[in-house]
Amino acid sequence: IACYSTSSKARQGKIYESAIDAVADVKDGSQILFGGFGICGIPEKMIDALKKKGVKNITAVSNNGGVDDCGLGVLIKEKQVAKVIGSYVGENTELVRQYLKGELAVELTPQGTLAEKIRAGGAGIPAFFTPTGYATLVQEGGAPVKYSKDGKVIVESVKKPVQCFNGRNYVMEESIFADFAFVKAQKADALGNLVFNKSARNFNAPMCRAAKVTVAEVEEIVPVGAILPDEIHVPGIYVKRIFKGSNYNKRVERLRITEPKEAGQPAAKANPAQLLRERIARRVALEFSDGMYANLGIGIPVLASNYIPDGMSVMLQSENGILGLGPFPTKDKVDPDLINAGKESVTVVQGAAYFGSDDSFAMIRGGHIDLTILGAMEVSATGDLANWMIPVSTMTWESSCSLLMYLMALQGKLVKGMGGAMDLVAAPGTKVIITMEHNARDGSPKILESCSLPLTGKEVIDLIITEKAVFQVEKGVGLTLTEVAEGFTVDDIIACTGAKFAVASNVTQMRQIPV
Amino acid sequence: IACYSTSSKARQGKIYESAIDAVADVKDGSQILFGGFGICGIPEKMIDALKKKGVKNITAVSNNGGVDDCGLGVLIKEKQVAKVIGSYVGENTELVRQYLKGELAVELTPQGTLAEKIRAGGAGIPAFFTPTGYATLVQEGGAPVKYSKDGKVIVESVKKPVQCFNGRNYVMEESIFADFAFVKAQKADALGNLVFNKSARNFNAPMCRAAKVTVAEVEEIVPVGAILPDEIHVPGIYVKRIFKGSNYNKRVERLRITEPKEAGQPAAKANPAQLLRERIARRVALEFSDGMYANLGIGIPVLASNYIPDGMSVMLQSENGILGLGPFPTKDKVDPDLINAGKESVTVVQGAAYFGSDDSFAMIRGGHIDLTILGAMEVSATGDLANWMIPVSTMTWESSCSLLMYLMALQGKLVKGMGGAMDLVAAPGTKVIITMEHNARDGSPKILESCSLPLTGKEVIDLIITEKAVFQVEKGVGLTLTEVAEGFTVDDIIACTGAKFAVASNVTQMRQIPV
Repeated sequence: IACYSTSSKARQGKIYESAIDAVADVKDGSQILFGGFGICGIPEKMIDALKKKGVKNITAVSNNGGVDDCGLGVLIKEKQVAKVIGSYVGENTELVRQYLKGELAVELTPQGTLAEKIRAGGAGIPAFFTPTGYATLVQEGGAPVKYSKDGKVIVESVKKPVQCFNGRNYVMEESIFADFAFVKAQKADALGNLVFNKSARNFNAPMCRAAKVTVAEVEEIVPVGAILPDEIHVPGIYVKRIFKGSNYNKRVERLRITEPKEAGQPAAKANPAQLLRERIARRVALEFSDGMYANLGIGIPVLASNYIPDGMSVMLQSENGILGLGPFPTKDKVDPDLINAGKESVTVVQGAAYFGSDDSFAMIRGGHIDLTILGAMEVSATGDLANWMIPVSTMTWESSCSLLMYLMALQGKLVKGMGGAMDLVAAPGTKVIITMEHNARDGSPKILESCSLPLTGKEVIDLIITEKAVFQVEKGVGLTLTEVAEGFTVDDIIACTGAKFAVASNVTQMRQIPV
Repeated sequence: IACYSTSSKARQGKIYESAIDAVADVKDGSQILFGGFGICGIPEKMIDALKKKGVKNITAVSNNGGVDDCGLGVLIKEKQVAKVIGSYVGENTELVRQYLKGELAVELTPQGTLAEKIRAGGAGIPAFFTPTGYATLVQEGGAPVKYSKDGKVIVESVKKPVQCFNGRNYVMEESIFADFAFVKAQKADALGNLVFNKSARNFNAPMCRAAKVTVAEVEEIVPVGAILPDEIHVPGIYVKRIFKGSNYNKRVERLRITEPKEAGQPAAKANPAQLLRERIARRVALEFSDGMYANLGIGIPVLASNYIPDGMSVMLQSENGILGLGPFPTKDKVDPDLINAGKESVTVVQGAAYFGSDDSFAMIRGGHIDLTILGAMEVSATGDLANWMIPVSTMTWESSCSLLMYLMALQGKLVKGMGGAMDLVAAPGTKVIITMEHNARDGSPKILESCSLPLTGKEVIDLIITEKAVFQVEKGVGLTLTEVAEGFTVDDIIACTGAKFAVASNVTQMRQIPV
């Protein structure tokens, strides 16, 4: 054998002239994976081409529903989409309107499960088990997928099988493999090898692998060999077509800027709501330790990162594919390809890493994150968490609920999706801290014997921190009050809490990290 | 919120002084993942340190068993290993000796299943379904895991659950999560971010994610920030300890060199065995088409790549993590970190990509390879394939078989493992071509009504090419003879074939690609 060799002629056959050419054979009724997270890394040229072509009845697999005039929102507005399979659709009011009017089906899927279903589809795995969503609507079924025009649920989500491994229950989820995957990459060579830019890798990377025909739109086509074999994010074998898009109109969904002068404004300090939030954040910050990896939810959890002591290293993970979040950028450093899971512009620290959504949730679900901190709408004495928005009972589903949903939807309060929260709390071995105001705006307790809202996770919480108290949560034991904020007594806490709890013998005043 | 930030102080806490320090807390009886493929990318310094420390009763998860004096072989020689979980152990005669003498347990696992079990363990997936191994010993159970000293099987592999998805049967496999993962990378920063070199990424990449404590030995520690966030192969979150090894003694298991003068030696052409192999290879080469991706087994399949016509692009995959194999290197270009699945030194073409074993088998199992070509010991009329070496019935297991095994083992014919073959043939949608000599050395047929040897896959073959004939294999139909080699008649083929077959109405002389 003189030789053992791939023949080396570079193919030009994958390069298409335009988005219009690349989507020319998409038929009505196709199932299509759309890359991107929020509107970061979306295949905007192909979305426009599908609009022009007028393809109808699309089943769109997309983490988000875009916004009203951008991303998947463009096709939803034109009523080209029959069904959305995604984790969070709260940014698109037209999508919610069509959903509640029975014009569009929505299958809400936890973000990590969605990423893994796609990864599995590409990897020849027809089904897998995940801790995510066990004992929630996602597993128990009955979530409304489609309404009739008069607001009745005509398609419900199905109940999923459960199996026990090592004493813990897991949900069986089946894979997704689509007709097309439309992705956006930074650059490609003629063989279809792809490299993504920063957090725009997100769902694009796993989606490339999970469709009969994957089309990548890129900002640059480079010569074969210009991307080194160790630097390729997605090998060309997965990519059937590529084309170069131009005049990208990339937007930041939530522009956040670090402006040094902000720090000098003392007025903000006087705001009582802000003081309350800072009290919680300063308590949360005591939970950090050197070398820790943490995922912080939007709001108070993020605020806590401001109190990480000097000299302590805490690496922050963002589930859209970043390890090593940095501060918000200065105006000149904003990059639409670099956002956090809250869709805010961010930077990264030295030593940060980017990865796809499948890898991100493998990291989360695998318990590699030491600490996850989230907000809550309700928590229970047994550590159940409810923090996603559909206000229906997990036990019954009646038309009155639908009406309630509709009214709440009109107020924009509803049908958002669970995003990555179910995955974040499901990982065995990851400490889950809940931060929230102790009571709802009407004064009713948010700590209850059992949650009335649909669960995000069952028996998942380890610690609850409110502006009034700190509770430890232990499996089989329940709540133990360990700290009470200045100005409150144990009796005050009993009075404003909707669940029974033990009081630690060494209960202390609520601690605060020094500033 | 002025800031949203990981604190940026680089940790030095992960850097250890030496291999001895890094493995100091490894206890007897630990389960340890050892990175590497063959002896490419093995954690050689940690293996030496474990030998010095004298850790006993190790359960080693390692694709291979090393060779007698290198890799895992070092620890096996010292009788420190109680059990090996791997896919191919044929290179280590001492391992096989210990196995058959009841000193060592061996759990043979298909390579892709092994990679996926590890990937799943790291990703919080307790179990998944795979097409690999269905209706073989791997799924049906009964393979000998451990012998007694007098050659009786005392531990057998267990039967695995099967479930049908979309009309096809899949095997449920459970994940692996170990006490330690010992991996070898090219470089790291102080945060533990890793970059691998070429095909040395292999099992190292998934293993990093699937252990309580991952230790990486590297050739270079670079400043934090020197590895760009888009170029990190494994983020530091997975790596607890790193140390810099020195004086690496990297070897190539099977050195192959392209020497121009070889082509000028006409003597080789006269060899009848070589002529026979070339006839098969020239027929196989007609199956290539432009733009195809193919995985070629060792031997005749590889030989076929020499006949890929000029101007046709066929990208060759190697299951140890390469897409775009090139010719064997010239002497000056040999790199021990760049080998193929046959452990031979290779090069890559422009536009090639490297990836880990989990990604490689995701590619294979997901059906992204158009064509896979393998050798066979036996094939059946229904497309069953037997090409791995344990000569035991899948139906019965008696002590006489053990004796036979032992005798054959003494001749070095046995207990090698299935490597990646079961995964390669299991992928729905990938064309499977078998190349082999029509008859065994004793003249007995290798094409049979049903296989007597343990199966590699059931109903998996699409085309059989021998030096005498070509058969199409169709599910529910069986064999159809389509081509007969020059010098043979249909009756000759009937006489030397052990299975009934149809004869195509347009049966032709066996075609050959022009040279």
